Amino acid sequence: MNRSNPIGIFDSGIGGLTVVKRISANLPNENIIYFGDTARVPYGSKSNSTVIEYSIQDANFLIKKNVKLIVVACNTASSAALDALRERFEIPIIGMIEPGAKMALETTKNEKIGVIGTNATINNKAYSSELLKIDPKAEIVEKACPLFVPLAEEGWLDHKATYAVAEEYLKELKSAKVDTLILGCTHYPILSKVIQDVIGNEVRLIDSGTAATKIVEDYLNGRNLRNPSNNIGIHEYYVSDLPIKFKEVAERFLGRKVSNIHKVDLEEITGN
Amino acid sequence: MNRSNPIGIFDSGIGGLTVVKRISANLPNENIIYFGDTARVPYGSKSNSTVIEYSIQDANFLIKKNVKLIVVACNTASSAALDALRERFEIPIIGMIEPGAKMALETTKNEKIGVIGTNATINNKAYSSELLKIDPKAEIVEKACPLFVPLAEEGWLDHKATYAVAEEYLKELKSAKVDTLILGCTHYPILSKVIQDVIGNEVRLIDSGTAATKIVEDYLNGRNLRNPSNNIGIHEYYVSDLPIKFKEVAERFLGRKVSNIHKVDLEEITGN
Repeated sequence: MNRSNPIGIFDSGIGGLTVVKRISANLPNENIIYFGDTARVPYGSKSNSTVIEYSIQDANFLIKKNVKLIVVACNTASSAALDALRERFEIPIIGMIEPGAKMALETTKNEKIGVIGTNATINNKAYSSELLKIDPKAEIVEKACPLFVPLAEEGWLDHKATYAVAEEYLKELKSAKVDTLILGCTHYPILSKVIQDVIGNEVRLIDSGTAATKIVEDYLNGRNLRNPSNNIGIHEYYVSDLPIKFKEVAERFLGRKVSNIHKVDLEEITGN
Repeated sequence: MNRSNPIGIFDSGIGGLTVVKRISANLPNENIIYFGDTARVPYGSKSNSTVIEYSIQDANFLIKKNVKLIVVACNTASSAALDALRERFEIPIIGMIEPGAKMALETTKNEKIGVIGTNATINNKAYSSELLKIDPKAEIVEKACPLFVPLAEEGWLDHKATYAVAEEYLKELKSAKVDTLILGCTHYPILSKVIQDVIGNEVRLIDSGTAATKIVEDYLNGRNLRNPSNNIGIHEYYVSDLPIKFKEVAERFLGRKVSNIHKVDLEEITGN
């Protein structure tokens, strides 16, 4: 594997850009290729079999671009499809669940951990099974929060409606007195202020994207696969659809201007 | 065309079931075949070219089932793809926009009409161009309300968060003193109580699904295409994905129990 090959990152849409933000902050010299499946977004309300089918197609697209590893920057795809992807492809594949679960267990003091995510991620019990595998005594409270994704995309980061939604979703976690809360969806860091305000400042928020970034860093260091260039890495963004407002929302998620966005025909992804 | 052939109805997902509810109430003896593209839902945040491609595939699926006419029970697909569908297919195709616009103009007294819908529908100016074609003096205020769809699907029909969202979205329409408001998305009738409360009881809500039902009825009567059977029509539901909670949400939208749900492989829809 050539060390200067890019890191491949995919997501159902734009949420994974919060992970790109973390990875490029820690590994600024790495080249990155991002694929967002915006023609079929969201994955979080879909069945596992559909998410597996789409994820395999997404990974295939990145592999054809000669990426040196793949980050599944989508908790839904990580929870539904990571095993299927690892069975199918030889390339190293890093998901969101294991890193987030490990960081949560390193953080918690009272072993009461909350997990929020999409319907699919929560229904798959992805985090709770990973957490219990490592620490069978952990108490876990999980809650699907399907409205957080559209609120983040709408940009209502400080709106009273967002507070009302967060109060509804987080009340069980609050009364269960979790001291650590896993943001189990790559959209949620965008709403971290509201989530922190509602759950209380004493609760530590775990961003799975930050946790996964550490795993990527360790992996590249351990195998001497860091890009030897001292230049700032080149980032290329591919999406299966370019809807209105895409650039505006993408820039909010990435925290800076985006160029190099390419629209890919869905036929190229599905392999027709 | 055989009069006993079913009416074909498609939508990006489950919103179109509110239209099925209206059509089956007015035309109880008609057989209905419904297709919901739940593997690729929603359409409202996607580009026109993608919505056109998907809509052609959806219509093709229904035509293969020998439907006698097609209802595009999705405002986004109607606004983006109706012309493309009518150019491509000979079968009569009824959309949501024309019927809703006509009913609004028959209803308004002050010629100030509000329109709410998805990002795609509002961005396409579908309703305003239809309204102005008929009545160039009409004043139209349009507002995209992307959070209403996930709120309807979450079932928060009377929640303070839903009120907070509605107050934000509807404030311009309220201060413009529209006397008629087009619900330009088949999900929105589910939220009609909140919308009516916030916009005020003096404003008349126009459900495009109700308006389209009248067009379907007139069309079948005018061409002697009503199903001659006196039996209650058979309804069949096809979806491209069967996510968790599908049945629960579908039943809320349809207003009764649903059986006869078939999952279709997306390959069958895309024609691979």
